[in-house]
Amino acid sequence: MSAGFPLSTIGTRIGGGGTSIELLMHDLGEALGSGRDTILMLGGGNPAAIPEVIEVWRRRMQELLDDEGATFSRMLGDYDPPRGSPAFLEAMAGLLRREFGWEVTPDNLAVTAGGQTAFFLLFNLLAGDMPDGSRRKVLLPMAPEYIGYCDLGLTMPLFEAKRPRIEHTGPHRFKYRVDFDSLDIGPDVALVCASRPTNPTGNVMTDDEVRRLAKRCREAGVPLVLDNAYGTPFPQIIFREATPYWDDNTILTLSLSKLGLPGTRTAVVVAPPEIARSIQAMTSITGLANNNVGQAIITPLLESGEIIRLSREVIQPFYKKKAAHALKVAAATLPDNIDYHLHESEGALFLWLWLRGLPISSREFYERLKARGVLVLPGEFFFYGVGEEDWPHSRECLRISFSMDRETVERGFEIIADEAAKAFGR
Amino acid sequence: MSAGFPLSTIGTRIGGGGTSIELLMHDLGEALGSGRDTILMLGGGNPAAIPEVIEVWRRRMQELLDDEGATFSRMLGDYDPPRGSPAFLEAMAGLLRREFGWEVTPDNLAVTAGGQTAFFLLFNLLAGDMPDGSRRKVLLPMAPEYIGYCDLGLTMPLFEAKRPRIEHTGPHRFKYRVDFDSLDIGPDVALVCASRPTNPTGNVMTDDEVRRLAKRCREAGVPLVLDNAYGTPFPQIIFREATPYWDDNTILTLSLSKLGLPGTRTAVVVAPPEIARSIQAMTSITGLANNNVGQAIITPLLESGEIIRLSREVIQPFYKKKAAHALKVAAATLPDNIDYHLHESEGALFLWLWLRGLPISSREFYERLKARGVLVLPGEFFFYGVGEEDWPHSRECLRISFSMDRETVERGFEIIADEAAKAFGR
Repeated sequence: MSAGFPLSTIGTRIGGGGTSIELLMHDLGEALGSGRDTILMLGGGNPAAIPEVIEVWRRRMQELLDDEGATFSRMLGDYDPPRGSPAFLEAMAGLLRREFGWEVTPDNLAVTAGGQTAFFLLFNLLAGDMPDGSRRKVLLPMAPEYIGYCDLGLTMPLFEAKRPRIEHTGPHRFKYRVDFDSLDIGPDVALVCASRPTNPTGNVMTDDEVRRLAKRCREAGVPLVLDNAYGTPFPQIIFREATPYWDDNTILTLSLSKLGLPGTRTAVVVAPPEIARSIQAMTSITGLANNNVGQAIITPLLESGEIIRLSREVIQPFYKKKAAHALKVAAATLPDNIDYHLHESEGALFLWLWLRGLPISSREFYERLKARGVLVLPGEFFFYGVGEEDWPHSRECLRISFSMDRETVERGFEIIADEAAKAFGR
Repeated sequence: MSAGFPLSTIGTRIGGGGTSIELLMHDLGEALGSGRDTILMLGGGNPAAIPEVIEVWRRRMQELLDDEGATFSRMLGDYDPPRGSPAFLEAMAGLLRREFGWEVTPDNLAVTAGGQTAFFLLFNLLAGDMPDGSRRKVLLPMAPEYIGYCDLGLTMPLFEAKRPRIEHTGPHRFKYRVDFDSLDIGPDVALVCASRPTNPTGNVMTDDEVRRLAKRCREAGVPLVLDNAYGTPFPQIIFREATPYWDDNTILTLSLSKLGLPGTRTAVVVAPPEIARSIQAMTSITGLANNNVGQAIITPLLESGEIIRLSREVIQPFYKKKAAHALKVAAATLPDNIDYHLHESEGALFLWLWLRGLPISSREFYERLKARGVLVLPGEFFFYGVGEEDWPHSRECLRISFSMDRETVERGFEIIADEAAKAFGR
């Protein structure tokens, strides 16, 4: 790839191009670049521009500008400590104590430049090549999982992913469940990781599943990592009752992105103090410090609890309505004579459509949709780590975003339904 | 370190704690935390809060807020492409073409989350363990070099640093020069790297030195990496004539930090297209995208050229005056009967003081100053990679920041002079 310059082993892995997420980002970028109007974009993970939420950011920025003190100039002009802004960390710890009763102090926290960076640091801190010559991996208790994890291993592919049990919950409806019988946390496992709500499926692991996972992790002496990008206390893009979970063997990540601030690249790791300290060390080496803007915007909202109100009264209902509408549209458009199943929509920004018996791969189906101006994500990219054994299910699914306007979802599903009928020869 | 969780080899290197930069950051942080008034902070690299510059950021943020379109909400609410904001990249390429006549397009550029991250990505892309089993290192043509590079190697220590020639340029004054005779770019070298102006010395490599380095790099088939954090076209914290350099075998990094925006963590890599593409790929994997705020603030200033005016008419004169004052204070306070030498102050935010024959190490001297409430940086941390052979010079230097107010510099130098006299037994 490079101008005659050989790439290192790590450079070849993460700078050589050709990873699946890059491929998709490229497709999404090209599609967007070709003119927003002609493309029905059901592929991205960008949060919606919710006017009431944007108004809060505008108000906060104006407050920062109008502040008599040096808040605004310090936000832009000072290096924060690598762990994060002390005021932000204090406010975040306070919120988690108040809301959930967790024994959390700033020593348990470390800010990172977004959730992706949090996982890059966490996975490479604990998994991969070990000093004793062994190799340790990341166990995903339930494939499919978030595509962004897939390429994070600096020296080796990191993942072993388990097949879930598939529970048929109603007509054309299903839910993945952790198959605890197959869940063996061996000595080659560094950590167990799951997103809750799950990107791409919209699944929310039950409280019971989380408790059992946490117990199994503790017994095996490995941390449980929960990706809470869509969860509570913010942004609460979660449509069923679910108790947030954290303990002293658990690492939880929170993010400002789905709240509506992805452009600030701000996430927080909640972890045992030693892990938080390691993340802080890695931040200082890989970037000196974090950017301050997201933290400065949010801090008073953490202190006042406004962030809870915003999540509960604005963001959650907004996406819940979107999800309900998308489900309705799917039911109205997808032909009854194909064997389709939608995952229960319990959170996040996506419907997960399983076209059982699809005669072509989801990648090919994705290409056909793209040719007709509809962008989704092919499900097979989310099944990394499941092993070589053939599993048709892994090629029969699509991730379909519903965070855009109603018309886009409606027109998109019409074409998806039409192509599905064609693919099945109906 | 971790709560019973073993760290990976990489985790041990960059998340295990105890690196020299962490040690110093900790000291600086603790000192600041103990109350700004009692500490004379001559240790940090934070840019000064220049009122005229802050006014520009305030104006720009207000413009973003007042914009009728969605500029403000997109800045916070949208993921940028991993290479950076298209408008920013176009404006940056245009500025470099206009100012320097370089054949640069957005294909040559990639935004990173600050200069530190740029070097983290660049060094690990090209140096370290290679796919063929060999190992390649980063050659620093002149120690001392920036302390932030020191721990960037993910799998091995990366650096071989060459001793410079020391040229005595006047009474108590010297300048480092590249010793081209000892500069052997062997097959185990992945790239050659230098900061210009240099952190910590304030040295600016001459045009002739840069041209010769570039020629030697091209002949050896390795890129020359120039860290331009303090250079032209912005922030122009450079006090002598020096022609900016870039060619198709050179990688140049620019940063918004010393312009006064370190809190936005924004830098730009200017490189051959294949390298820029690799940086973009690494950004997408390690962080999905960059934060947008610095880019949004700066883009119109790149387009209008205001960033050049600001750098040339405000920022450069501000620091040039600070440098001149610090030199004057140093001459007035340091006793003539000790063998001290100051590096020519040609750029950046620091004086580099060489106490020739210092009977104690610079680390010990640093501790004595700290005990008296003066924080500087001990020079020996900047001489990593010079090898095992004893070199007293590497323990005889201090980095002293001059970006703070005049009184702090004056009171600080009084104590430095007093401790120097004591150390030498004068």
